[in-house]
Amino acid sequence: MSRRIRRTPYTDRVEQVGVRGFSVVNHTLLPKAFQPSVEQDYWHLREHVQIWDVGCQRQVQITGPDAAFLVQWMTPRDISGARVGDCLYVPLIDANAGLINDPVLLKLAEDRFWLSIADSDVLLYAMGLALGRGLDVEVTEPDVSPLAVQGPKAERLLADLFGAHIRDIGFFRFGWIDVEGTQQRIARSGYSRQGGFEIYLQGGHLGTALWDAIWEAGQAHDITPGCPNLIERVEGGLFSYGNEMTRENNPFEIGLGKFCTVDGSIDYIGLAALQKIAADGVQRKIRGVAFDGGPCPTCSKAWPVMVGDVQVGQVTSAVWSPRLKCNVGHAMIDRAYWAVGQAVTVRSQDGILRSGEVSALPFA
Amino acid sequence: MSRRIRRTPYTDRVEQVGVRGFSVVNHTLLPKAFQPSVEQDYWHLREHVQIWDVGCQRQVQITGPDAAFLVQWMTPRDISGARVGDCLYVPLIDANAGLINDPVLLKLAEDRFWLSIADSDVLLYAMGLALGRGLDVEVTEPDVSPLAVQGPKAERLLADLFGAHIRDIGFFRFGWIDVEGTQQRIARSGYSRQGGFEIYLQGGHLGTALWDAIWEAGQAHDITPGCPNLIERVEGGLFSYGNEMTRENNPFEIGLGKFCTVDGSIDYIGLAALQKIAADGVQRKIRGVAFDGGPCPTCSKAWPVMVGDVQVGQVTSAVWSPRLKCNVGHAMIDRAYWAVGQAVTVRSQDGILRSGEVSALPFA
Repeated sequence: MSRRIRRTPYTDRVEQVGVRGFSVVNHTLLPKAFQPSVEQDYWHLREHVQIWDVGCQRQVQITGPDAAFLVQWMTPRDISGARVGDCLYVPLIDANAGLINDPVLLKLAEDRFWLSIADSDVLLYAMGLALGRGLDVEVTEPDVSPLAVQGPKAERLLADLFGAHIRDIGFFRFGWIDVEGTQQRIARSGYSRQGGFEIYLQGGHLGTALWDAIWEAGQAHDITPGCPNLIERVEGGLFSYGNEMTRENNPFEIGLGKFCTVDGSIDYIGLAALQKIAADGVQRKIRGVAFDGGPCPTCSKAWPVMVGDVQVGQVTSAVWSPRLKCNVGHAMIDRAYWAVGQAVTVRSQDGILRSGEVSALPFA
Repeated sequence: MSRRIRRTPYTDRVEQVGVRGFSVVNHTLLPKAFQPSVEQDYWHLREHVQIWDVGCQRQVQITGPDAAFLVQWMTPRDISGARVGDCLYVPLIDANAGLINDPVLLKLAEDRFWLSIADSDVLLYAMGLALGRGLDVEVTEPDVSPLAVQGPKAERLLADLFGAHIRDIGFFRFGWIDVEGTQQRIARSGYSRQGGFEIYLQGGHLGTALWDAIWEAGQAHDITPGCPNLIERVEGGLFSYGNEMTRENNPFEIGLGKFCTVDGSIDYIGLAALQKIAADGVQRKIRGVAFDGGPCPTCSKAWPVMVGDVQVGQVTSAVWSPRLKCNVGHAMIDRAYWAVGQAVTVRSQDGILRSGEVSALPFA
């Protein structure tokens, strides 16, 4: 890979511990697998603890007198009640209510925010909005590279290493730890259902030291290197920007209605479009779909979901679940067919017709 | 790869003809190599003709009464003299004159433009500017996927296939061809120094038919599948956004001063910053660097360029040239050391110290 695909402060270590390939998120490397298989990574994540290089979750820092205004203008979620130390999941939408990104917002101060972004250049979008409207803000990408520690043993490991006070950090709140004499933010969050923390390391030169400290302390807890796991993610109903949602989708379709204030009490880009969708009713929604036919291939194109000869939706992510002994997927399903238990046929990209049914999320 | 990394209308064919790996540009697959080596691809490109899937060059379409205003606001290049049918290389800069992208602008009509972009989400930036300023424009990503035909035999091949009129298309101009009964734009342009064309295919459903038509007609011209070639690109002095230039760089550093109007006759984002840089004088510039020590590794981190104990710059791209029998690279070099012939030492990421010298671009 060329320099255009950026390395993180942890990439050297990730290579040393035997990464088996990378994906690219925000022009940055994201490890794809470590163990001989994604399935082995999956079982380990559910039982032990893993260290994940998620430096690709870039931060868009918005500071200045108009910072809170700009952030609120970008999302339908009412952020007026947020406290310093809160992490909020904030869908960002365009003027047609199409999803632009689904970052986690960290409120650092009344006039200072980070958007911890999924895979689109929110930095440029926020810069454009600020320049266009002449807002008194600075929009930058700070030298911050998140490192995640995920799995049931994550809290024990991190309490050993950084102190018992991290046990008091609430879900989607951040606290502080000492890394080489610097104060660093640590949040109870992460892209798995197994629990854990994300350290928002500021200062890339500290990356190796942080990795090594966790790695050493982790030896007593069966730590392995890991990364967001497709099986765990699909089973857990964790959605991925670019897969489950794009600008073709509005927040209601993705089950994000609870984060949308449409009563006019706050103003933001896309409000009118979102109010119309709320009034008209949403026409399709993301659902689980369980289906057979043996382990399915990687879902790199949308797969038709059929009821008889009618296409009623499309699969957006899918994988074989070794625990549930069937394929599990996320699928965008039309209103008339989205009831749990609806029998469907999935046509995967290997041409196989697979029978299945609509399921709730997360999978049991 | 998941659906998040988008396939192009040509990806199926690219896989059928034996692609050896992909990179990711604009959330879209870009083939990395076909022949057993990049070197064999290089020799073929210089002598024959290749078909390249460059569908990752996404188009940002800007239409409406304020379209020309918005485009001009985004770039220091004066576009007022552009004619319909022109393709213009237009650096885009931020308020500090840092480079955001370096697209080719296609003027489709007085109120309709495409920005054919390098690897950053100009779509979101342009949307942000338009929303912020309340401009009367539409900013969209149309269903357009460029296909390049590059190499010395490209013109002959395409004249055979589409008609002799394509010979009359000037450099960085576009004309028209018939594809399955549709009119499609074809420009004399492309990311090589060997000459050729880019077809801006509108309508992804036509992708396979277009690929197959060129492939069949190309059999008489020794066509192979190809992709932007690192050796040819570095030798040819073609810069890559994310490698040679980022938001850390201003246009003067990249030799793009000729595209910057700083006399105040046009207004754009970053004008004041660019005027100051023009007045103060630029402090570093991109140069060639030729160096020895045997074939160098891939440049995935910036490599220090030293004169004695002083770091005077950094290599941004580098590769072994089988023709010149040395390594060739692009490097950002400080003013005091940028003269052609300056002796330097390059410290590549394998730890080897390599002696070399500053060179003009393109390499001879």
